[in-house]
Amino acid sequence: MTTEINVGVKSQIKAALAEVNKRDIKNVFFVACGGSSALMYPSKYVMDREAKGVDSYLYSSNEFIYRNPVKLGKNSLVILCSHSGTTPETVESAKFARSKGALAISLTNEPESPLAKESDVYLKYEWGKEADAFATNYSVMYQLVFGVLNLLEGNEKYELIEKNLEKLQATYHKAAEQTAAAATQFAEKHKDEKIIYTMASGANYGVAYSFAICILMEMQWIHSHAIHAGEYFHGPFEILDKETPFIILLGLDETRHLEERALSFSKKYGEKLTVLDAKEYDLSDIDDEVKGYIAPLVLNYVLRQYADKLAEIRNHPLSLRRYMWKVEY
Amino acid sequence: MTTEINVGVKSQIKAALAEVNKRDIKNVFFVACGGSSALMYPSKYVMDREAKGVDSYLYSSNEFIYRNPVKLGKNSLVILCSHSGTTPETVESAKFARSKGALAISLTNEPESPLAKESDVYLKYEWGKEADAFATNYSVMYQLVFGVLNLLEGNEKYELIEKNLEKLQATYHKAAEQTAAAATQFAEKHKDEKIIYTMASGANYGVAYSFAICILMEMQWIHSHAIHAGEYFHGPFEILDKETPFIILLGLDETRHLEERALSFSKKYGEKLTVLDAKEYDLSDIDDEVKGYIAPLVLNYVLRQYADKLAEIRNHPLSLRRYMWKVEY
Repeated sequence: MTTEINVGVKSQIKAALAEVNKRDIKNVFFVACGGSSALMYPSKYVMDREAKGVDSYLYSSNEFIYRNPVKLGKNSLVILCSHSGTTPETVESAKFARSKGALAISLTNEPESPLAKESDVYLKYEWGKEADAFATNYSVMYQLVFGVLNLLEGNEKYELIEKNLEKLQATYHKAAEQTAAAATQFAEKHKDEKIIYTMASGANYGVAYSFAICILMEMQWIHSHAIHAGEYFHGPFEILDKETPFIILLGLDETRHLEERALSFSKKYGEKLTVLDAKEYDLSDIDDEVKGYIAPLVLNYVLRQYADKLAEIRNHPLSLRRYMWKVEY
Repeated sequence: MTTEINVGVKSQIKAALAEVNKRDIKNVFFVACGGSSALMYPSKYVMDREAKGVDSYLYSSNEFIYRNPVKLGKNSLVILCSHSGTTPETVESAKFARSKGALAISLTNEPESPLAKESDVYLKYEWGKEADAFATNYSVMYQLVFGVLNLLEGNEKYELIEKNLEKLQATYHKAAEQTAAAATQFAEKHKDEKIIYTMASGANYGVAYSFAICILMEMQWIHSHAIHAGEYFHGPFEILDKETPFIILLGLDETRHLEERALSFSKKYGEKLTVLDAKEYDLSDIDDEVKGYIAPLVLNYVLRQYADKLAEIRNHPLSLRRYMWKVEY
């Protein structure tokens, strides 16, 4: 079944790339909201590191529409994402992109959704504990992005990334097992905290952002903020004291030095530090050349355990909302 | 004296543009840290709205170096800023940019600084209460950016923006007078707060970011986070209750709808709201065509009063630091 679904994902990507191939694509816009936007940050990092010709931009959906970038047009590929496919601003962004002549490719869990319908192509990704990592959102996004880079610029990492994404589920499992005890410890230590900061840089910043705004603020009503590890020393670090909790992510990309520097300083003057370091996980199945790109996906997977444990011990289910889906906004 | 300094600024810009003119510039990188980075956000907005051909990117300095964007090269203009001209990562960024063949133009208050020395061209801006707004950082940045757009693409707003920046000081004064009482009220109401969020979108987001990380976190040790008004509804708004303070900025650019929507929701479920609305300020001297670009500068100026009053009432000078310039980091 897994194999069948994975074959399906590959053929969806192939179909999407066939549409890209019909156009003269010169720039890529990543457009989504909240967690769906955060999952595009690693792809923006990939574009900055890999794309020799194609330009790329990342916007929250309504910012995209109202900012109305002058470069959006028939040479644009707009990549959108909404889990339910119903996020109004993202559906509107797909319409807006197509009205400008751009190609709109969306990722969603719901093939019958408005977003799927308003896009030129949709890619259905899998979700939940049964899904193989290869068929889930981060992986489908990478397959699309590296596929586009391969198609437009002959980028040679496409096959390599595909091969590594096929081994991602096993890597997830190992990392989750390694961190299960740490996740429980984190939850016990932080159950009464009013604020928890997160911090990262490079390909991992989106994971820190997502944990801050989706898990802590949205699902746990705990104050938070994702601090960029490079910006830390230019303002935010003055907030550090022995009482203020930080979750510090260390990835494996070129910016790791920024995260290490932030951690090293924080250890001197702070005490409530939770460190997730991709170097400590068993990534032996992953090729060195793409470890930096894969690390944020693993960190994100591992962090979900931290969220689950925190919700459990606080008796505050991750599904609980005050406003979202409940009131008008 | 003011006239003389302003003439000097114009001739500095002219000299910088002459250097730009010697190259074949295809992309612009905005590179700085903290508050100096934040002051580039409106210019990134300008580029997205105005630049038909030239691409633009914005990074914190160390992220720029380690991310090492593949597009950085001899067709790049790298615009840097550091007030003292000593920020190590930004000085390093100038060296790095030039080692890649890029043109490095920096803004600084210190012509004798390492940043000025490591750049191809430096622009000295004025600072402090005596300085005319035309010669200060935001204005010099806009003159450079619109100058580059005019030079490379014939953008026609260059003269208009220059004319409007010459009237900026008078506009600042009027707005500051209008908001003096509100700033005092804000300080009285918020003197005991442990956390204060800021929020904005579009050209104004950088002002919200700067107030959050430089004023609240760095200078007042108050927890904070700049929430993007469009992202608000996809996570952060769940934190809103009658006890949580928000500073909500409303500008005059194309994304104002996002800020209005965020305010309208916040009014329903929140109570500790401080609203700074550029529409309420006397911008009659400013041409409609550039009001959206000028608004963040005015909001930033006005907010400085809020910072001053907050520092005063909390008996916590804006100059007080725990770590910055005091310990190794």
